[in-house]
Formats: sequence, C-alpha cells, structure tokens
Amino acid sequence: MLKNTSRDSRVIIIGGGFGGLFAAQALKSAPLDVTLIDRHNYHLFQPLLYQVATGSLSPGEIAAPLRGILSGQKNTRVLLGDVVEIDPVSKQVRLADGGSFDYDFLIVAAGSQTSYYGHDGWQQWAPGLKTLEEATNIRHKILYAFEVAERLSDPAQRRAWLTFTIVGGGPTGVELAGAIGEIARQTLKNDFRSIRPKEAQIILLDGAPRLLTTFPEDLARKAEEFLAKLGVQARMGARVTEVDQDGLSFQMNGSQEHLSTKTVIWAGGVTASLLATTVAKRTGAETDHGGRIKVGPNLTIANFPDIYVIGDLALYTDPDGKPLPGVAQVAMQQGSYAAKAIVRKIKGEPAPKPFKYFDKGSLAVIGRAAAVANIFGVHVSGLPAWLVWAFIHLMYIVEFQSRILVFIQWAIQDLTFSRGARLITGVAPSDFNFNREMASENTAEAAKAEPEAAPVR
Amino acid sequence: MLKNTSRDSRVIIIGGGFGGLFAAQALKSAPLDVTLIDRHNYHLFQPLLYQVATGSLSPGEIAAPLRGILSGQKNTRVLLGDVVEIDPVSKQVRLADGGSFDYDFLIVAAGSQTSYYGHDGWQQWAPGLKTLEEATNIRHKILYAFEVAERLSDPAQRRAWLTFTIVGGGPTGVELAGAIGEIARQTLKNDFRSIRPKEAQIILLDGAPRLLTTFPEDLARKAEEFLAKLGVQARMGARVTEVDQDGLSFQMNGSQEHLSTKTVIWAGGVTASLLATTVAKRTGAETDHGGRIKVGPNLTIANFPDIYVIGDLALYTDPDGKPLPGVAQVAMQQGSYAAKAIVRKIKGEPAPKPFKYFDKGSLAVIGRAAAVANIFGVHVSGLPAWLVWAFIHLMYIVEFQSRILVFIQWAIQDLTFSRGARLITGVAPSDFNFNREMASENTAEAAKAEPEAAPVR
Repeated sequence: MLKNTSRDSRVIIIGGGFGGLFAAQALKSAPLDVTLIDRHNYHLFQPLLYQVATGSLSPGEIAAPLRGILSGQKNTRVLLGDVVEIDPVSKQVRLADGGSFDYDFLIVAAGSQTSYYGHDGWQQWAPGLKTLEEATNIRHKILYAFEVAERLSDPAQRRAWLTFTIVGGGPTGVELAGAIGEIARQTLKNDFRSIRPKEAQIILLDGAPRLLTTFPEDLARKAEEFLAKLGVQARMGARVTEVDQDGLSFQMNGSQEHLSTKTVIWAGGVTASLLATTVAKRTGAETDHGGRIKVGPNLTIANFPDIYVIGDLALYTDPDGKPLPGVAQVAMQQGSYAAKAIVRKIKGEPAPKPFKYFDKGSLAVIGRAAAVANIFGVHVSGLPAWLVWAFIHLMYIVEFQSRILVFIQWAIQDLTFSRGARLITGVAPSDFNFNREMASENTAEAAKAEPEAAPVR
Repeated sequence: MLKNTSRDSRVIIIGGGFGGLFAAQALKSAPLDVTLIDRHNYHLFQPLLYQVATGSLSPGEIAAPLRGILSGQKNTRVLLGDVVEIDPVSKQVRLADGGSFDYDFLIVAAGSQTSYYGHDGWQQWAPGLKTLEEATNIRHKILYAFEVAERLSDPAQRRAWLTFTIVGGGPTGVELAGAIGEIARQTLKNDFRSIRPKEAQIILLDGAPRLLTTFPEDLARKAEEFLAKLGVQARMGARVTEVDQDGLSFQMNGSQEHLSTKTVIWAGGVTASLLATTVAKRTGAETDHGGRIKVGPNLTIANFPDIYVIGDLALYTDPDGKPLPGVAQVAMQQGSYAAKAIVRKIKGEPAPKPFKYFDKGSLAVIGRAAAVANIFGVHVSGLPAWLVWAFIHLMYIVEFQSRILVFIQWAIQDLTFSRGARLITGVAPSDFNFNREMASENTAEAAKAEPEAAPVR
C-alpha cells in the first residue's frame, strides 16, 4: 500500500466541516502529511447559522478560520481551493484553479447543499440556509421586508411584505420560524411607526403530517405549542408547487392554495454536494436519490479501500438497515473513525471494527429560552431543554474566544430582546425594489397616512 | 416661519452618522415631528472600521440599527432611503425611489466619501475604507493575499502578493498599516507552511513630508517608531501616479518608482458625498474644492435659515479662518448645535451664539496597546495613549451590548493575538483569480517545493 520512500503518507481531506475538521484533528500526532482543502477559509458552525440569519449573531461568531484552528498541528496544511475532480487510479485530486495534489489516503467530506427537488429556479425567491452568505442574505430579506412594509399604504401589499414563509418543518425550519416570531414580537416591537411588527404572519409549511419528524411525537407537539405562542402557524401536509417573487403556491388536503408572501426561506431539504457525482462516476460507487455515496462498514468505497467518504456526503446504513441522518454528530464520529482507520493502516495494525453511530440525541430551539430535546431517549422541553442546547452548542464551538462571546451575547439578548447584528449590508435582495413597489403610490402619503396603523404617534 | 396648523413642525435629518444621529437624539423631547433618513439601516462607528477591515471585529460590533437606537424616541421615525434631490423653495426632499417628504427644518448630514482626486479608475484596485462593505472587502483582500502567496513558488510573484500598500498617512492609514503589521507578525505567525507571514512588506505612502500631519510632530515621530517595530515602512513625500492590478507607481524625490503589490488600500482622502452638489446647486451655496458646503456661523446656508449643514459635508470656518476637520467630534457637536437652534426657533427664543468647536484632541492607534494622542494639548504615547483611546471609543459606541462585547474581544485578542473575525466571505476580490495566477505554474509542486521557505515542515 505505502510507497517505499522515507516520506510520510499523504492524507488529503476535502472539506473543513464537522467531518473533515474532526478527521484532521484526530490525525494530529500521526506520522502523516495531512492537507485539508476547503472552498472557504473557515470552519462554519452550521447549527447556529439560523441565528446569523435572524440577526442574533455575527458571522464571525459562528465561524473560525481553519488555519487558526489547525495552526498548532505541524503535520497539517490548509489550502483554500475547490476540488472538482478526483482520479482514484493515479490517486490525485484536482482543483478548479488547475492545481493537483497526490494522496495516499483520501477523506471526502464535502457536505451537502440545499435541494429544491428539481425546481432550482425557486432558489432565487426562496434562499436556503447552508452558507454564511445565504444567512446574511436572509437576514437582509427579513429586515428589508419590515422596512418596505413601513413605507407602504396598500393593505394587501403591506400584508405580503409582512408574511414570512418557511418551507421545511425540520429543526432548521422550526428554529428559523421561532426566531422570526421573536423578531416580530419582541425585537422590533417599538422600532416602527406605521406598522406593528407583531402583525407579521409567520407560516411554516411541510409536506409531512407533523413537525420534526425525526423527533418523538410528544416533543413535536410541544414545539408546535411553543411556535404558536410566538405567532407561528404550522401548516402540515402542504406540498409546494410554485414559488415566485410574489409568493408561493401549495397543495394541501387536495386543494390548491396561494400565499402572497415576499419572504420565503427554504429549509426544505438537502442533497449531497456536487463533488459526490464526480466521485461516484470515477469509482463506480452507488448513490441514493439524494446523491449520497454508498460506503461500506468501514466508511470506504467498494474497491477503493483508501477513499473514505464521511458526513452528509456518505450513505452509511446501520446494521439494522437504517441510513444515518445528515447531522453534525454523525460527521464528527465518522471523521474520527476514518482518521483512526488510516493510522492503524500505516502502522500495520488490523482495521478497526465497523463504524457504529452513537446517537446522543437531538435538539431544536424555539425562540427565547425554549427548546425540545431528546437526549438518550429522555424527552425534555422548555427551559431545561434550552439549557442543554446552550451548553452543548457552546462546548462545541471551536474557538475559545467565540465561545465566551456567544455566551455573553445570548445572556444579554435574553435580558434585553435586542439583536445587535441586525444589519442590512451589501446590495438589496434581488426581488426588492423600492421603485417598483412604490411606483403606484404616493409614498409621502403612504408614510404619513394610515393613522389606524400608526398607534404610537 | 411655522405654518399655522396644530401639527408639530417637521424636521428631516439626512444621514444617520455621528452628526445626524446626535441631532436626532438632541431633539428627543422637543415638540417636533422628526424623520431620519439614511441609506443604511444602521449607524456605523467609523473610527473602528479599520478593525473590521483587519479582522479584529465583526461588522455587527461597530454598527447599531438606527431603529433600535431611536425606538424609544416617540417623536422620531427612521426611513431607509436615498435622498437624491431637495427643493428648498417648496421645502421638500425626494428619494431615489420616488418618495417625497416635506420639511420645516432640514439637517443635511450626508457625510463624505473616498476621493481619488479624479482617478476614479483606481478604486477597483485600491478600495477605500468608508463602508462596512468596503471593510469586509479589504479584509478578504488581505487574507486572500496570504492564501495566494502560500500557493505560489515564483519568488517575485509571491513577493507581490505579500506586499501591502496603504496610501495615506492620516489616522486611518496609520491604524490600518499597524493592524496589517500585527496580522503578519503575530496573528498568522503559525498559520502557513510555505510562506512566513512576517516576510510581508507593509508600505505606507503619503505625499506629505511626515505622517499624521494633524498631530504634533513629536507624536508623528512616535507613531513612525511604533510602525517600524511592526515592520511598516513609511515613505513620505510620495505622490501616487498610477494604480493597477499589479501595483502602484509613484513619484518621490523627483524620480519615478514602481511597487509590485497586489493589495493596495486607499486612505488617501475624502470628498463631500454626492448630495452636496445637489444642495449647492439648489441653494446657490458656495462649495470648496472638496465639495463641502459653506455654512454661516449658525451652520445654515446663506438665505436658507432652515437648512442646516453639518459634519463632513459642511465647510465651517472658525473665527480665526481655519476650516474644521472632518472628524466625528465636529459632526457630533454640530448635530447638537443644529438641534438646539431649531428648538429655540420653534419656541420663539433668540438664536444661539455662533457655533464653536471644542477640540478635545486627536488619537491614533498603532497595533497592540500602542497609540499616540494629543489630548487638550498634552502629548501621550504608548500604552497610556492606548488606554485613553480604548476608553473614549468604548464610551461612544452606541449600543450597550456592543460596548461590552468589543471590550471583551479586545481583551482576549490582546492576550492571544487571535483575530476571530478573519473570515473570507462573499466572492473573491475582483483582481483575485487563482486560475490566472496559477496558469504558468505546476501548483502541486508550488505547494510542496521551496523547502527554504517552509521552515516548519
């Protein structure tokens, strides 16, 4: 297996998410030459991305530079690059910029991306929440919507701008909806003069019969109660059929409905990142409908014992036939496993026992100091669940500095309901155009009229 | 003056910077109908912008939503909009989106923008530092430069990517240069494998004979010493003649020089924002070469006693004939003055005494815990000056939350030299193209060769 030279074996890790980073860190003291390649220069703590999208945290607080995290690890280099091709025969990966790198072992941890199930055109109107850029874009959309509504006098238009729709009733959708509810009910309470932010409609749609299908039913019911208190309507069994700049159509109970809504956020599903297709093609690996690559019990691809596929990109089936979910826990454990397997191999030790996922439970947060949690089978909700959530998330945030800051920020926000990071930077969202929206109105009047809607003056 | 109706007089404030915000806050309890219009939804604490540009702080930490700051002020509304026209006869302002608003009193506080002295084409290669977008763009440029250098083997190219040039030796230029010096010497010390970040060249150019011309000479000399310790070369008497994607040409001591540098930052000067031209045209007001509007002793435009012009946009000449500098202190004091003058007028009281600037002094920070300060004529440098600087800036940061966070972040950073916010988000800078840079090289080799430049492996 190893080439007969004095140099250390080369491990290339594609992706600096939970899987790739944990693999790299687990290789810290191994006699290996490790290269971690990522398109971004930072590790992103994805579970808190919705807090950036809703103005509670700044991008810098949930992301940490990969170089910084790994700077003390002398056997590891970090490269900023986009892997677009692999050659499993000559054992090489190639980057979009033309650079190529040889490997002895490859760990593919390129993650997942938002899936619109064949309707990619919807992305323009309904951004997903996978990257920092999308999170700040969503933040701008939400905040702009209130700004536009403040300037409009037409009740129907104003209503459309104050209607926020989240597609997808998994943890991300639930957390987003809860946070938007809180923005409307608490954060912006006194900020406007013509509109009352709490008039905002927040609608959470999902095709499933209930929220949080990966959670026990009693917790999903609790979550729905918490959401209702924040003004969020959960509409289950709804299948989206169209999204455009004015709103969204869906089928529900056999009938077609239309919702006039200017802000739609897509938390509806993910698919393996593009690289999965390339890897599958080059190795002949099987993939599932979500594009995930089928791996064996030790996380390698059939016939390619030196290529490990981990995290959201991997389709790993438990001994009892259940595929593992695309969550951080799975990626981290698989990253550590792959690292261990490689180290054993170069030491000439026997391969480790097949990978086994140790499920610690699942958590979703709904607004301020409320959450639902299933921890080792124990169902917890409300403040205790929130405390568990806060503790676990803080412990995992990679950088010491971020950890303290996030904690203090939460404490202050929970006392004050303020959201310091609710800034609108960059250009306006593509579907936002004051000129267009205002064309039919006398805006000077719009801003001053409507006394019934301006209770505070 | 006042129309004979029961409604309150309308004050429109254009701009939510130091001047506009202070004016709005000073009108808090006045019987007036106040509207603050800004293109952004936040107040930006500009003196700390360089810390966002150099990855010490996140945008959210130096900006606070205007609505939040003013939400308790019931006589005030905030509008997101871009004022493009004023009619001083019918007393109306018009926005880019077509909306228009009547005023009884107008406060123009639209600020300044970067000036390239007629060479606007340079902006593409040498961004200024006036907005959050520019700050994050500069941050990306600086961090990308190290990433690219890490991938290059050609020494000349590598050198060009590791050469950082700041044009302008005022406080912003000095602070930027010091922060980049610290990044190269401390923050990134262990982060790379092929390059040594401290090999970076940091060059500070200015046409003046010395740095910090608005400071006393002994402090400017001190600043130059502090900068030299961080590896910054100050080259004075240099007049830039050209900037393009590969570098910058300048004249110095009568000869022409060229610098191969991939990162150029423009801290070379400002001019009044575009609105000044319109205001001058409509009112017949005089302007100076920087586009600033000449105002009388009570900050109004000749013949328009209800139009106040304050801050960077105003050319106010002291009784001894010296125009006031474009700094936050001046804007804040002028904002408060304009508010006071308006309140007196509606109460039928005599106009206040002519505006008088109370100069508290000036400050510039050079890297970690070092600064120079001229406080009420007392010259201070080193740690004491830094402490004064930190105290004053913290006190002025608008939101309670930001104040605590910034303080803690600084404390942690000064202990650890880390910069948590050094993220590269968004698209790559326009002049950055791995493909182009790499085309002539075997990048796999580039990354692995050059043993003399990779001392840590």
